[in-house]
Amino acid sequence: MVLLGSTGSIGLNALLIAKRFGIEVEALVAGKNIALLNEQIKEHHPKYVAIADEKDRSLVNHPHVFVGKEGILELMQKTESFLVVNALVGFVGLAPSIEALRLGKRLALANKESLVVAGHLLDTKKITPIDSEHFGLWYLLGNRPISKMIITASGGAFRDTPLEKLASMSFEDALKHPNWSMGPKITIDSATMTNKLFELLEAKWLFGCEKLDAIIEPKSIIHAFVDFQDGSTTAHLAKADMKLPIAFALLGEVQEAILPPIDLVSIGSFSFQNIDKARYPIWEIKDDVLANPKRGVVINAANEVGIAQFYNREISILELAERTKKAYRFFEDALPQSLDEVFQIDKEVRHYCLK
Amino acid sequence: MVLLGSTGSIGLNALLIAKRFGIEVEALVAGKNIALLNEQIKEHHPKYVAIADEKDRSLVNHPHVFVGKEGILELMQKTESFLVVNALVGFVGLAPSIEALRLGKRLALANKESLVVAGHLLDTKKITPIDSEHFGLWYLLGNRPISKMIITASGGAFRDTPLEKLASMSFEDALKHPNWSMGPKITIDSATMTNKLFELLEAKWLFGCEKLDAIIEPKSIIHAFVDFQDGSTTAHLAKADMKLPIAFALLGEVQEAILPPIDLVSIGSFSFQNIDKARYPIWEIKDDVLANPKRGVVINAANEVGIAQFYNREISILELAERTKKAYRFFEDALPQSLDEVFQIDKEVRHYCLK
Repeated sequence: MVLLGSTGSIGLNALLIAKRFGIEVEALVAGKNIALLNEQIKEHHPKYVAIADEKDRSLVNHPHVFVGKEGILELMQKTESFLVVNALVGFVGLAPSIEALRLGKRLALANKESLVVAGHLLDTKKITPIDSEHFGLWYLLGNRPISKMIITASGGAFRDTPLEKLASMSFEDALKHPNWSMGPKITIDSATMTNKLFELLEAKWLFGCEKLDAIIEPKSIIHAFVDFQDGSTTAHLAKADMKLPIAFALLGEVQEAILPPIDLVSIGSFSFQNIDKARYPIWEIKDDVLANPKRGVVINAANEVGIAQFYNREISILELAERTKKAYRFFEDALPQSLDEVFQIDKEVRHYCLK
Repeated sequence: MVLLGSTGSIGLNALLIAKRFGIEVEALVAGKNIALLNEQIKEHHPKYVAIADEKDRSLVNHPHVFVGKEGILELMQKTESFLVVNALVGFVGLAPSIEALRLGKRLALANKESLVVAGHLLDTKKITPIDSEHFGLWYLLGNRPISKMIITASGGAFRDTPLEKLASMSFEDALKHPNWSMGPKITIDSATMTNKLFELLEAKWLFGCEKLDAIIEPKSIIHAFVDFQDGSTTAHLAKADMKLPIAFALLGEVQEAILPPIDLVSIGSFSFQNIDKARYPIWEIKDDVLANPKRGVVINAANEVGIAQFYNREISILELAERTKKAYRFFEDALPQSLDEVFQIDKEVRHYCLK
């Protein structure tokens, strides 16, 4: 396989699964954590590697090092693997997703931004999502007609923070996710609920279901519900550990234990809440976004700029959502009809948000 | 279809489903509620009917009335329907189950005692259970390997009764089930947890799963869980309404709304508890019974006798369980190898329990 984003949380788990099941690692793509990349090279012997910065090239213990965004695409063109795992973070993951599909490869996609910004322009039949919620939905599919899909949200770092204190919460505070250990970008997106909005868009493109919603399940054990026409609802439960969806994405089907079973009595209880628009102001546009899913590119660009501003202490987490919504309203006609237009709109939105 | 037990709770729901989906009702079998049976005759125009007592024959508005246990079998031999719905209560349902299968009919089985006492001697491939828990398990089956099946119990009428008051609870108290509206026998069996022991035996014969257990979910919304080898658990949820499993048992698959969907946020929460052996003393023999499922006939006979004694205020609900366990231990060698032996052992156990 080709693994994009090998030193992140998804990348590490993907390598554990690859090792366990003897999947050859043809290429590793990392960012700036060269020390860890060197360890991975030692263990997995990839034919090719790529990194973010030219200045790190000499530090990499490998004869075939590609560099930068273009380097990732060049590396992919060299590879023969059928499977590309894209665990890059943010809009930067889109071009490699497009390239993987153009090269006829199967795409195991943890980079949800690819689907958020261009789901209508990608061949989703070739995409397996690496995401607990979409894995859960997929696991529950059968031949029976579905009426609704529901994914769960943990509520993120500020689920129980008094509302009046939200504006004063720092980037570091937002990184304290109660259940999942993930990279910083998705952890911030969990705190703002933007992650769940993105996942609804993902679900829309992947499953084509018209009725979609999200609710809060604070323990992150129940990942997804499917309502069937007959009145049955089924649920997917598992420990909060990405090795399970990764194993299925890498292997197709899995017939052995990836995670230990959950123990319902020791878990004790589950509770469900609606997503509160006061706590998660991005949720005000949820219905509109689901009705206009091609505008995901606007939300994503504004969100990425906002996260950087929040990181730089220029804005609060509540302003982050407000700025995203403002951009979403401003670019109401931005409906990309091609991948070129996706890149163009992304650029325009970023420019607008940085003004 | 042929409907055995038409005036009970399952029978009424089965007739509602039959009416909605245009299923012809060829025969109705009822007990002593002749007034209701006459209404059903008027509405469904069965070709044959059967009742319990000869003295009621003249009250039935129908030209073809069969009477008694033998009458049910004679009636079944006359019918041409492919489907027999057996919603009789207790051991008396066994002979009609056997006859339905002997006649090559499909058996939609609400009479769980048939499987409890003779599951190893019946062709379960021809049996569709009418039970929320087994419907839930069946709904969750797929092609993936299963590691465990778990059904839920409401806990029955005495779930929250102080333990020291259990011995003084009356038959009428035991009929106050918190969630389900069912006939008296199954409601008593819910209060003692014997119903859940029976359902584990049913599941064992129907699905052949080695690992089985039950836990308490007080709202009776989650009916079943399946643990898969990979670490996933799936759950079946639906309103506590028998029309759903009945519709599937009558129609095979159903593609339209039988029940409205559940609303998770308005339900709010679910909790899970182990089944407490102090409150439900029958649970002490659960593991032993599951390891020796052919001895179900002993438990069932002792339980039926005990329920009558509890009804007659001869024993308390705790003694009911103790007597059942005593009989279970006394008849430890009773392993019926044929249906004749099942009837013989049933007789011996009843004799022992009435001593």
